[in-house]
Amino acid sequence: MAQLQLTSLIFVSIFAISSSSFIQPPHPFDPLTETELKLIRNVIKKTYPIGPKHRFTFQYVGLNEPDKSLVLSWHSSPHHSAKLPPRQAFIIARENGRTREIVVDFSSRAIVSDKIHVGNGNPMLTTDEQEAATSLVLKYKPFRESIRKRGLNILEVVARPQRWDGSVTEFKDRFMAPLPKANGTEFCISELKPPFGPALQNAVVLQPNGPGFKIDGHIVRWANWEFHISFDVRAGLVISLASIFDMDMNKYRQVLYKGHLSEMFVPYMDPSADWYFINYLDCGEFGCGQCAVSLEPYTDCPAGAVFMDGIFAGQDGTHTKISNVMCIFEKFAGDIMWRHTETEVPGLEITEVRPDVSLVARMVTTVGNYDYIVDYEFKPSGSIKVEVGLTGVLEVKPVEYVHTSEIKEDDIHGTIVADNTVGVNHDHFITFRLDLDIDGTDNSFIRNELVTKRAPKSAHIPRKSYWTTKRKIAKTEADARVKLGLKAEELVVVNPNRRTKHGNEVGYRLFPGPSSGPLLTQDDYPQIRGAFTNYDVWITLYNKSEVWASGLYADRSQGDDTLAVWSQRNREIEEKDIVMWYTVGFHHVPCQEDFPTMPTLTSGFELRPANFFEQNPVLETELIKLTTTPKCTPTTN
Amino acid sequence: MAQLQLTSLIFVSIFAISSSSFIQPPHPFDPLTETELKLIRNVIKKTYPIGPKHRFTFQYVGLNEPDKSLVLSWHSSPHHSAKLPPRQAFIIARENGRTREIVVDFSSRAIVSDKIHVGNGNPMLTTDEQEAATSLVLKYKPFRESIRKRGLNILEVVARPQRWDGSVTEFKDRFMAPLPKANGTEFCISELKPPFGPALQNAVVLQPNGPGFKIDGHIVRWANWEFHISFDVRAGLVISLASIFDMDMNKYRQVLYKGHLSEMFVPYMDPSADWYFINYLDCGEFGCGQCAVSLEPYTDCPAGAVFMDGIFAGQDGTHTKISNVMCIFEKFAGDIMWRHTETEVPGLEITEVRPDVSLVARMVTTVGNYDYIVDYEFKPSGSIKVEVGLTGVLEVKPVEYVHTSEIKEDDIHGTIVADNTVGVNHDHFITFRLDLDIDGTDNSFIRNELVTKRAPKSAHIPRKSYWTTKRKIAKTEADARVKLGLKAEELVVVNPNRRTKHGNEVGYRLFPGPSSGPLLTQDDYPQIRGAFTNYDVWITLYNKSEVWASGLYADRSQGDDTLAVWSQRNREIEEKDIVMWYTVGFHHVPCQEDFPTMPTLTSGFELRPANFFEQNPVLETELIKLTTTPKCTPTTN
Repeated sequence: MAQLQLTSLIFVSIFAISSSSFIQPPHPFDPLTETELKLIRNVIKKTYPIGPKHRFTFQYVGLNEPDKSLVLSWHSSPHHSAKLPPRQAFIIARENGRTREIVVDFSSRAIVSDKIHVGNGNPMLTTDEQEAATSLVLKYKPFRESIRKRGLNILEVVARPQRWDGSVTEFKDRFMAPLPKANGTEFCISELKPPFGPALQNAVVLQPNGPGFKIDGHIVRWANWEFHISFDVRAGLVISLASIFDMDMNKYRQVLYKGHLSEMFVPYMDPSADWYFINYLDCGEFGCGQCAVSLEPYTDCPAGAVFMDGIFAGQDGTHTKISNVMCIFEKFAGDIMWRHTETEVPGLEITEVRPDVSLVARMVTTVGNYDYIVDYEFKPSGSIKVEVGLTGVLEVKPVEYVHTSEIKEDDIHGTIVADNTVGVNHDHFITFRLDLDIDGTDNSFIRNELVTKRAPKSAHIPRKSYWTTKRKIAKTEADARVKLGLKAEELVVVNPNRRTKHGNEVGYRLFPGPSSGPLLTQDDYPQIRGAFTNYDVWITLYNKSEVWASGLYADRSQGDDTLAVWSQRNREIEEKDIVMWYTVGFHHVPCQEDFPTMPTLTSGFELRPANFFEQNPVLETELIKLTTTPKCTPTTN
Repeated sequence: MAQLQLTSLIFVSIFAISSSSFIQPPHPFDPLTETELKLIRNVIKKTYPIGPKHRFTFQYVGLNEPDKSLVLSWHSSPHHSAKLPPRQAFIIARENGRTREIVVDFSSRAIVSDKIHVGNGNPMLTTDEQEAATSLVLKYKPFRESIRKRGLNILEVVARPQRWDGSVTEFKDRFMAPLPKANGTEFCISELKPPFGPALQNAVVLQPNGPGFKIDGHIVRWANWEFHISFDVRAGLVISLASIFDMDMNKYRQVLYKGHLSEMFVPYMDPSADWYFINYLDCGEFGCGQCAVSLEPYTDCPAGAVFMDGIFAGQDGTHTKISNVMCIFEKFAGDIMWRHTETEVPGLEITEVRPDVSLVARMVTTVGNYDYIVDYEFKPSGSIKVEVGLTGVLEVKPVEYVHTSEIKEDDIHGTIVADNTVGVNHDHFITFRLDLDIDGTDNSFIRNELVTKRAPKSAHIPRKSYWTTKRKIAKTEADARVKLGLKAEELVVVNPNRRTKHGNEVGYRLFPGPSSGPLLTQDDYPQIRGAFTNYDVWITLYNKSEVWASGLYADRSQGDDTLAVWSQRNREIEEKDIVMWYTVGFHHVPCQEDFPTMPTLTSGFELRPANFFEQNPVLETELIKLTTTPKCTPTTN
């Protein structure tokens, strides 16, 4: 693979621009509509000429997040009767080589802010740019010649942009490697030959009384949960204003103001000239929403799933759509919500069991070769589980070897997964931004360390030790940088002004899943740009502008605008509006099972109420029975 | 609660002993049948008088595990035509205060071995003994008087045996505590009052072509898996001879010779006179099989589940039964087995998705207050996931406080979860014995450390670092003691004599879940007895007698026969028949949500093929569609 530096081209699709009038949408977090995108384009056209002859491109168009206090006062007003916050769009555009940050206000239909970005880094690559980059390579004569030399078909060659300059500044055809054969790489069932298997049996799911959830616009209501679901071209699926109904208090209580994917950092571990630069910041460079896929009913999401589209602006500002980009479904996994069999009371046997059900909001983003399944799972017990599933195909490199015994180098930086094919070692770091508001905005982060104590010496008591909890409040951002696994501690976000009737601070506790931290050195440029992975958990003071862990401009970034840099300000975070950042990390040494497609590997974390409720919130949930219905005939739709 | 020391009583139920003739069962791992249990009793009666007037009790009766080499040669013979290993029973009995280890051979219908146990520790407490202990307390006059003084109803008092002596040797009525009221402790839906909720919708699961698994005696076949499922009074559910069909090789390949729960260690963290001794070894003291519960269809196990009974010997040697003690079901959780959307090849868009299905074998053991859900999940991809769910009710103590502000002690060793009620801090350590045979018995344990390297200095390459794998073979048991989370390493069990066609050693990799190690000091008696939790992962040389991590005699054990002691022998384990021990650990600081019943908290681990197959083993699995069937009417059976 030759390394290339690519020029940014301007593509313009031809659209008829209708200046249809704009209707105020019902919810401040609703994604921008087709009508709003048209309005934005029309407003900007008044100031900047848009069209084939002009160098103006829309790199990012999204909701300009309204002021949090305005949203909260609207949300807490009876029947949301209070005034809605002003609705605005935030646009990052490139205009004659400059990067502009433009805010368009919908009520005044005007640009209310227009700045030129002067720092490091470039905005997200648009789909057009990514395609342009590829086609530029494929059109580039010396490259075509090198492909011809290898006897390959240029139509089967794929290139993925790595950097973003002005033209092809450099071209190297360094060496010829025996190219892996295609055999064994087919994964389309239509192309595969028998025998098939392992054989699995079909199943039918029916909800006789319909689904348990209701969707009103972008608001989802299910069991005791209510939340808003939205789509952003960089983050993909966004959960907002998630709150849970408390039966004792007879009201909804805030848990998560906003939660979404912030960045995915994928550095590869081959330092050679052809690979050292392969370190992706997937969301910041390519857009985890932009790369999200249309989900297939019954396979990507089970029976009963409801789907939602994703609408966003293309490079020319006209709207594009990914249909079925998100799905919502109830999960009946055969788990047990809670149970107890009481046998100790003489002459009395009690068995009470509640089967578990949860609600999942899912997206899948396919950034190049990998497919990332991102699930936000809500449980009636109050838990929010976030799960990331890794699947798709490996990023591989050609080698002369077909067998480990032939290896001459001291390190091939991966595993031979097929003839002449090495799956290269790499990491996946998936960072989530979780703006928790536990029963209100003023929260604290508690590190409850479990410490061993010596038991008091006693003639009658042989016991020598026990553990107890040592409560430490994180006063500043530095106190809240956590590397998991180093000590026994509970991590809890509490509202110090809200206590249960027994005096315990209401809170939500983080239950981390298995995770892996970075192994690159701190002076290495990929890690400087990916420094937001230096800790598994961070807490920062809420700041409207601190949303993307890799910085607002991740492409070609220098690491001067990352979560790690913001945390260096070491702001006070006790009894403040705070944001949790959690990174799900994987080290991936490929194995042959990962080829040509990889069985899903999953990790994640759980946020679980801890003294948030006065007692088990699902104690009084009524029994559902997941029955069979032998008589009915499935209709495969 | 007053501490009591209790006497062992002999209970004898009256049974007619039929000497029905004995039929050789088909599989060497099949649990003992009712007929076999009768035979055992008859054989032993010839030597030891059994009956009300004699002090002979059956403490443990189980299969005397046949010689592994005999089982394997039988299992690998065409159509299992080779001779079956001799079938025998292993009995632990108490006879006039002595503990005997008796082996009964079924073909010769004779005692072939009879030893007296001379070391420390007692056998498992029988159900009769546990009930006798309780009733002894309740009959004990000074105790009844102390209950009366408190104005309580003796019929509502529960006692749990802690130690096992000869008689009530000591009685202390230390203090009166305000007893928690019963209000808020009810968890039976029939007794609870509206409003109920959160409300959940029912669902129906139908498999139009029937379930995907077949059960032949105790052998389960599903997708590409085959395994034997059995029941032991101490371990509960036992998986044996799990092997997976390899389509390339057109044969079944061994993965897990035997896997089961070995011990559950639950130490409490209150060192006071009334609590310091509350440190359970649940399987060794009470029997995790003996305490297993009858599973309820549709709630404990979903629709389509198949149930199996557990048969074992009571204290008098006659058989008892727990019906539906195990269930097997297919899990359709809405997960994705693998997927990929290919968009990079110009003019070509491919989406292939395979929904995931797995097979779960489940038991629930309720040892006193806690209910443990133990799932063995098999995936077509070759993964075996083991999951433990904690639910049930907290072990609580009465206090004078109803609010944290009233607390006078410096440490109440727990959380106020209700009026006058403290949920006491404790741990749960659930230890599994996994006799892995990866493609044969001679395996090695590899610790693949991920180490950071400096990148070679180069003018053209700015990259400064990368990680690579440093492969370390565990030569001895000491090399294989692992504390998780201390460094980045992959833990793999390989068969060094079997390689893929690309030369990679075939293996299975351990993917640990979140886990917590012990915090008690090494000189503390509960930790000396629970020393098998000192590491998260151990590898030992296979030894037929090393099955129970806490030792064969866990009750009143001194820690001289634990996994930690066996590992001290530091045997060579390279290219040997080895056994993996894995502990799932939880620190539990109770919160109010855990009261009165606790929403299930889950952890576990996954064993995943790593270069075991030549490629993704589910690449060619055919698509199943989890359809809806809007027309049918569910029959709630």
